[in-house]
Amino acid sequence: MAMSAARPALQVLNMAAVGVFAVSGALAAARAKQTIVTFAFFAVITGVGGGTLRDLLIGAPVFWVGRSDYLGVCLLAAGLVWLLRADRWRMSALLWFDAIGMAAYAVVGTAKALSFGLPALPSIMMGVLTASFGGIIRDVLAGEPSALLGPEIYISAAALGATVYVGAIMLGAPPALATIVGVSAGFTLRAFAIARGLSLPGYRGSGPDKSD
Amino acid sequence: MAMSAARPALQVLNMAAVGVFAVSGALAAARAKQTIVTFAFFAVITGVGGGTLRDLLIGAPVFWVGRSDYLGVCLLAAGLVWLLRADRWRMSALLWFDAIGMAAYAVVGTAKALSFGLPALPSIMMGVLTASFGGIIRDVLAGEPSALLGPEIYISAAALGATVYVGAIMLGAPPALATIVGVSAGFTLRAFAIARGLSLPGYRGSGPDKSD
Amino acid sequence: MAMSAARPALQVLNMAAVGVFAVSGALAAARAKQTIVTFAFFAVITGVGGGTLRDLLIGAPVFWVGRSDYLGVCLLAAGLVWLLRADRWRMSALLWFDAIGMAAYAVVGTAKALSFGLPALPSIMMGVLTASFGGIIRDVLAGEPSALLGPEIYISAAALGATVYVGAIMLGAPPALATIVGVSAGFTLRAFAIARGLSLPGYRGSGPDKSD
Repeated sequence: MAMSAARPALQVLNMAAVGVFAVSGALAAARAKQTIVTFAFFAVITGVGGGTLRDLLIGAPVFWVGRSDYLGVCLLAAGLVWLLRADRWRMSALLWFDAIGMAAYAVVGTAKALSFGLPALPSIMMGVLTASFGGIIRDVLAGEPSALLGPEIYISAAALGATVYVGAIMLGAPPALATIVGVSAGFTLRAFAIARGLSLPGYRGSGPDKSD
Repeated sequence: MAMSAARPALQVLNMAAVGVFAVSGALAAARAKQTIVTFAFFAVITGVGGGTLRDLLIGAPVFWVGRSDYLGVCLLAAGLVWLLRADRWRMSALLWFDAIGMAAYAVVGTAKALSFGLPALPSIMMGVLTASFGGIIRDVLAGEPSALLGPEIYISAAALGATVYVGAIMLGAPPALATIVGVSAGFTLRAFAIARGLSLPGYRGSGPDKSD
Repeated sequence: MAMSAARPALQVLNMAAVGVFAVSGALAAARAKQTIVTFAFFAVITGVGGGTLRDLLIGAPVFWVGRSDYLGVCLLAAGLVWLLRADRWRMSALLWFDAIGMAAYAVVGTAKALSFGLPALPSIMMGVLTASFGGIIRDVLAGEPSALLGPEIYISAAALGATVYVGAIMLGAPPALATIVGVSAGFTLRAFAIARGLSLPGYRGSGPDKSD
């Protein structure tokens, strides 16, 4: 019930996040000089991967399977990146689009998990997975070390956005407001990380550095 | 209803595809000089991986879980590759078996998705995933660069077979005929690619080649 | 019905296995000098990954999703490894904890599959997947060659434990007894492998060694 007020906004956010992640998947294929078919494959997996894992885990019908529009957006993204030679775009532009997609997907994923009756902690985990899993599969398939698992502030920003959304809902905020503050919090942290080159400290072992 | 006429043929195709992919998984383990246990593990994952992902996505009970025959075929394939030192077989023989399996799995996956009420585009996607996902996991686990993601015409052939099947069904063809033309189309394209060394053109970036 | 007598013991074993695997995930993050966020991510994926795959395959609600305690144990494990600089612990201690977790998870996974009506062979496969899948994802994400896929006796020990459990149940043993002999069998084989450096023979190709 409380969810329904925010649902149209969530769907717009969801579609936007799918499209942005699909573009990032196609760009990974471009970096690897792949074919148009691999462009499409990477765009689909990166675009819908995170939300697919979320839906499987919470027992929901997978969001893109019964319809054509989400896949269509992914294929369109792949085609546009190929035709427009989009790797000429400044990579910084992509980083900012990706930041928006991540912040949107973290809140959308958390909201859907809450609406399925999950407690706060697993709901936040679902938001983090939704925002990060597509990019992780993309990196594993492309054979690149996953930037998401480095010191960059990415998963942290997704976790912050998801946590702020849950906190706002628990404090009684209307879903639309909670969505705005959650997306803003995740995006702002990620934006600072991009603009200032912020990163988290890595683990410091106990002895002299052994190169394994 | 319309599916039921083609069902026995589809089940035979399905079991054949599982067996062929299980052999290819065991051969990957052989190349890596693995143990008999890893042979079995690779055979199972490669044999049933694609159909497993399809069933999870469309919300069907996973096809091999409630019975023993599919797993049995995979274990048998692993044992035979081990005992017969099957890597002595000419690899070209394997390529042809694999082409049959791919073409069969693409149509079987698409047909199952259609029978669950999916629209055309996601049904084709399911056929492509069914035909390719097992091989992709096999390559990731073996630490090999996935040949499926290179310029080789593989996913394209699966997509062609799936698309032809859907088109034939939409034009009112009986399922048995649609299956035959779909499998033939996918196999023929793949066969040309193997025999003539055809491949798709890779993406050409916009500037001088940067080695990332 | 027959399961219910063993259920509390199985739940304790399950939680113990999740905790032990979460520690091993956090230690992998420590080896890679990762951040606290990646510690948490690796702990969760390694801790619950195997059981998650099992539940998706058998069509059960994913065990950790509707509650907070399993995720909480994983996050706690990540925090403790970080704070206590647990990589100073002797790695041999970890190996033994991991052996207990593997043996427990193999029997827990098999028992749950049997209780969902699966035949013997797929139930044993579920036990093996539950015990090994989390560690395999951990290794793939960390970019390490998966030790589980080498000559080490690991998957074999999980398969032995699962098979002994199924055999004992089929012979009419009460579930508590079957659990004890299954866990003991898997743990003992793994313990011998660790203590004596046992490993399985790798596949020997048919010709002179070709480096692919």
